[in-house]
Amino acid sequence: MDQDLQPGQLLARGVSRHLRSHGFVSIEEFVPARGLRVDVMALGPKGELWVVECKSSRADFQTDSKWQGYLEWCDRYFWAVDIAFPTDLLPEGTGLIMADAYDAEIIRMGPEDKLATARRKKLIQKFAMDAARRLHRFRDPRLPALPDDA
Amino acid sequence: MDQDLQPGQLLARGVSRHLRSHGFVSIEEFVPARGLRVDVMALGPKGELWVVECKSSRADFQTDSKWQGYLEWCDRYFWAVDIAFPTDLLPEGTGLIMADAYDAEIIRMGPEDKLATARRKKLIQKFAMDAARRLHRFRDPRLPALPDDA
Repeated sequence: MDQDLQPGQLLARGVSRHLRSHGFVSIEEFVPARGLRVDVMALGPKGELWVVECKSSRADFQTDSKWQGYLEWCDRYFWAVDIAFPTDLLPEGTGLIMADAYDAEIIRMGPEDKLATARRKKLIQKFAMDAARRLHRFRDPRLPALPDDA
Repeated sequence: MDQDLQPGQLLARGVSRHLRSHGFVSIEEFVPARGLRVDVMALGPKGELWVVECKSSRADFQTDSKWQGYLEWCDRYFWAVDIAFPTDLLPEGTGLIMADAYDAEIIRMGPEDKLATARRKKLIQKFAMDAARRLHRFRDPRLPALPDDA
């Protein structure tokens, strides 16, 4: 399995494992709005929503022109990087998670900027539907495709 | 895979497949509250919550003493049965779905009895967390157990 995953996906795996210890569940490659796709969207027990972008290298970070667009779709925003990453590059006012493929640690919390109630409700609804739809494909491997299944 | 599933689970599979065509996602064996476990909890695009209890036989239905307790945890309640089931047994004021292992059809809508806002919010949050937690075990098969993983 490991060999099928890209470096960023391995970081995401470690992040998702670790976030469980904070009581969060997560899904990968979540689309909060058209044209945006976050690496990890995590949902906490009180409905908290955290976005974690996983960067495997300096180049991976420097070619990301979209991250500021993610801030308005979460309560807290984090970068996840490995131990070799030059963390001085990362902008102020963002959270930092050190990760590898197996686990992770929150080094610096992202500052809280709470979602409006209506947006949180909409995001949790979408999170629920996406997670259940993906789970369905696993639990029923012969699930017929729907016309709108991309 | 089919041979691992009980008759009720095969009905649930057909129900879950069919509900997609109504825009609903679903998870099985959802626990809305301590001591209750519903066969299928379905979530619609507007946050609608439907409970579907799958009954594979007269005996299966007659030994169910809990179903009335499910009514307060959904907007609509349905039975799912196969073509051989004596549907005259089923109580008035409930929905009816004819199902087999492959698909299903809504014969009679369950009457709508809308959840209160706070309960709906809590249920969708739990649905999201349960679905993501189960999905996580599939996408990361070597996910270490947590102390509270039952």
